[in-house]
Amino acid sequence: MKQPFALGFDFGTASVRACIIDADTGEAVASAVCPYGSGENGTLYDARQPLLARQSPLDYLASMEKAGAEAVAIFRQAGYQPKQIIGIGVAATASTPIPVTENLQPLAALPRFADNLNAYAWLWKDHTAIEEALQITQIAAQHRPAYLMKCGGSYSSEWFWSKIWHCLRTSPEVFHAAYTWVEQSDFIPAVLAGITHHKQLKRNVCAAGHKAMYAPEWNGLPDKAFLTMLSPELAALRERLYEKAYDYRQTAGILCTPWATKLGLPAGIPIAVGAIDAHVGAIGAGVGKGKLVKIIGTSTCDIMAFPQAEAPNDFAGVAGLVRDSVIPGYIGLEAGQAAVGDLLDWWVRQTLNKDVTYHTVLTQKAAALKPGQSGLLALDWNNGNRNILADQQLTGLLVGQTLATTDYEIYRALIEATAFGARKITELITRQGIQINQIVATGGIGHKNELFMQIYADILGYPVYLVDNPHTVAIGAAIMGVIAAQEVLHPAATIEKLAVRAGKVYKPQPEAQAIYEQLYQLYSQLHESFGRKGHVASLYEIMKALLRIKESTT
Amino acid sequence: MKQPFALGFDFGTASVRACIIDADTGEAVASAVCPYGSGENGTLYDARQPLLARQSPLDYLASMEKAGAEAVAIFRQAGYQPKQIIGIGVAATASTPIPVTENLQPLAALPRFADNLNAYAWLWKDHTAIEEALQITQIAAQHRPAYLMKCGGSYSSEWFWSKIWHCLRTSPEVFHAAYTWVEQSDFIPAVLAGITHHKQLKRNVCAAGHKAMYAPEWNGLPDKAFLTMLSPELAALRERLYEKAYDYRQTAGILCTPWATKLGLPAGIPIAVGAIDAHVGAIGAGVGKGKLVKIIGTSTCDIMAFPQAEAPNDFAGVAGLVRDSVIPGYIGLEAGQAAVGDLLDWWVRQTLNKDVTYHTVLTQKAAALKPGQSGLLALDWNNGNRNILADQQLTGLLVGQTLATTDYEIYRALIEATAFGARKITELITRQGIQINQIVATGGIGHKNELFMQIYADILGYPVYLVDNPHTVAIGAAIMGVIAAQEVLHPAATIEKLAVRAGKVYKPQPEAQAIYEQLYQLYSQLHESFGRKGHVASLYEIMKALLRIKESTT
Repeated sequence: MKQPFALGFDFGTASVRACIIDADTGEAVASAVCPYGSGENGTLYDARQPLLARQSPLDYLASMEKAGAEAVAIFRQAGYQPKQIIGIGVAATASTPIPVTENLQPLAALPRFADNLNAYAWLWKDHTAIEEALQITQIAAQHRPAYLMKCGGSYSSEWFWSKIWHCLRTSPEVFHAAYTWVEQSDFIPAVLAGITHHKQLKRNVCAAGHKAMYAPEWNGLPDKAFLTMLSPELAALRERLYEKAYDYRQTAGILCTPWATKLGLPAGIPIAVGAIDAHVGAIGAGVGKGKLVKIIGTSTCDIMAFPQAEAPNDFAGVAGLVRDSVIPGYIGLEAGQAAVGDLLDWWVRQTLNKDVTYHTVLTQKAAALKPGQSGLLALDWNNGNRNILADQQLTGLLVGQTLATTDYEIYRALIEATAFGARKITELITRQGIQINQIVATGGIGHKNELFMQIYADILGYPVYLVDNPHTVAIGAAIMGVIAAQEVLHPAATIEKLAVRAGKVYKPQPEAQAIYEQLYQLYSQLHESFGRKGHVASLYEIMKALLRIKESTT
Repeated sequence: MKQPFALGFDFGTASVRACIIDADTGEAVASAVCPYGSGENGTLYDARQPLLARQSPLDYLASMEKAGAEAVAIFRQAGYQPKQIIGIGVAATASTPIPVTENLQPLAALPRFADNLNAYAWLWKDHTAIEEALQITQIAAQHRPAYLMKCGGSYSSEWFWSKIWHCLRTSPEVFHAAYTWVEQSDFIPAVLAGITHHKQLKRNVCAAGHKAMYAPEWNGLPDKAFLTMLSPELAALRERLYEKAYDYRQTAGILCTPWATKLGLPAGIPIAVGAIDAHVGAIGAGVGKGKLVKIIGTSTCDIMAFPQAEAPNDFAGVAGLVRDSVIPGYIGLEAGQAAVGDLLDWWVRQTLNKDVTYHTVLTQKAAALKPGQSGLLALDWNNGNRNILADQQLTGLLVGQTLATTDYEIYRALIEATAFGARKITELITRQGIQINQIVATGGIGHKNELFMQIYADILGYPVYLVDNPHTVAIGAAIMGVIAAQEVLHPAATIEKLAVRAGKVYKPQPEAQAIYEQLYQLYSQLHESFGRKGHVASLYEIMKALLRIKESTT
């Protein structure tokens, strides 16, 4: 047989990318991207509801067709044949639930719902369901505390049940028209496989995990009695959802003829069960024991996986602990920060009113500063705190400004703030006895900003590796395709073999580390004082210490 | 006799203004301004010493000649005669000490010192003497606590002894060449009067006050034993300074022929003893019992005066309490904030990199916001805290940022921060039993920014009056000229009669006041937590409360 390849799709927030890799070496041989056609960068907004963010499921399909066909064309031009592709994998955002009919038709495709954004895909960053998330957290805290232990003690407005409940409350006509709800990462594989009945659909454990409160310990989704406490109609919906979720070793189906034609591939190629983009990015970056993968973009996802025997059952402060979600057979750990690239972009575009090229200007100037030289310290909570405190009702803070403080000093302080926030997460993990030997960065920022990477190494105190290819999510999806097609039972070694190499390394610099150690202590004081109810302290020394550190750098 | 007039000079940081007023009505009939010729906006800097700020005494004279002669020309063009001018008054910055020879020749005029900035005038905002100020405060706290009670508990790097001591330490050749040191507000009247020997010089109590630690209670300047603890050479200098300081009811001398010629006036006009600009601005704005005058510019000075019988002897937190300094026979109270216009200018020019016109853009947008709507709260300490805490080692703070926060929301939060800081001062004063009936604003900002004025009224909880003419310092100086020339013994009534009217009033709006009351409580929590050693508290509620208040405004 000829050399085998696999195709991966990465459904991002603004576009879909298709990537074809060598199934033996992991080398990426073809890649193509296509933005979504509707809305603003692919997202549909409503000026009257600033927290709303939706997408059209039809956009997903149109862009998948274009990107996929283009990647296959490039692949052919390189001298390969479509029949060499042995498997397909799909990564998508989550929780991005889509209301569908019994035949998996998206309601958004029905003419009567074309103008109703509630019938569209509820994009991960839709925050309309804050109220529902609070109530789910409260009811779970009282009646099902175990549910919360898997999701860091707090259920999010970005997740499955919050969004569906909000739909029931605010748009009952959509709720009642929907037979069931499907995650984007289940919808796409089903479409590719030509599945037209919800009973044939295999849901993925990765999106089910903490986001839909799914766990084997309580036999799948939250029990009916609990859902009845939220609403009897959610309890009734449970029966139209699923009993069991699958990992990507399973196939969701095989490529159907219509989609084979659209993509220029033969029908019948196995399609892996889907997974969520952050986890798949970690697969693409070679996640494994002792290796923390940071997917750094507008926000940051931290992903690890470790053998079950070595895993704590659950611990507070981490957003998700899901069995089989990252590496089947392992416990997947997910944590993250709500605003990283977004925080820098807030400063450049929203506050300074500059365009995106100004990031480079500020980075160049900020790189000339020594650690501590600005005298500034910030909290990275402009979009709340996702992990450690798990509190959306937190905001940003900047301290240490003088009349000489500049825009690039603040820019650097914001980068540092996200790195201090990142360190809170690595410390939380290692405090649980989980060892981190290596940190691998993927996502957009690392490839654009060396200063950012060096600050992370200095503040985290680990060498930070940067992957050689930024498209780790699409490559990870292709790796899933290989694993499903080859029926790999223990995929850790396959992942290690096929993942993108991380050749560039940023090492902690002892001098910078020493200063950042002091600044981190101050950051921690602010973190506890503003973030923990009942925490009582004196903050008088903070401004003094920042001035002392600043003076020591000159 | 024909209608009498008086001429006032206002030596500001960048220029000198001359103003001629009607000595019966106070009406300003002629005004002219001339910037200083050297340096950057009249100030000489040294790139190697960022805290240094000096001026050329020769610039003062050249610009005074131009502005004075132009005002007199305008006065003549209006049909009046120079001989109708009965008195001259002078206001200047302080503490701005100038090293001079025994004949009052500035060292800066000597060729051998032309290149030595230490031989120039040490401008009020020169901060090279931070170390000396700290030592003076420490030694006084231990040995002469009474000295500190007049200056808010802390001696400043901006003041007389700090600067001279710093000169002794860093530039002994200048210190030893100087026979004595003269405040700018004493130097100018002496020049106009043609005084050429230091013994004939009358020093003004206003600049002597807390800035040179002068008080009748301890017979003038600090005693020799105390100065010896600083340095024996400072103790020796004491004998070449002065025993007694005078108020502006006294004449410093009469206009000498050379200067009469330069200005186009007859010789012999009485020249009042000088005073410092903030106090003179208060005179021009009609300071009196129950009336707090706020001179709001790059920084803010708060001036009151009250009959001695009603005055507390001294109280912590107020920068100065000086007998006879504002209204002879009264106790003058001086407080202030280190950065007000400077804070807004920092945001616009230093951080946003916009020009001065952007203040107007931000103000217009910020005016459309409701109080509390931004969710932001700031501390106004980018240049330290001059009063209440009297601590230069404090810095700015901003809290409440989200990813949607804009530049104009931050601008408004900075205005509000200065108003909260201003309220700390009015509360300090009223807590001492001193009643404030009216607040009068003068200085540049009030005339340019209605939003600023309204926010002050809403936050301070007093009607805030704006003077009709912005040149209150020059007009106040002219009023001093009237008082000295007419030998007015109790000048309160004269001041009330001649001062600039304040026709425009900004009244507190109850709805805004209610919200600002909540924000002020939060400001106070930050103020105490970051500003007071040993203050222990929980700040967890601050971000929550800001979000609640923000939500309540929509």
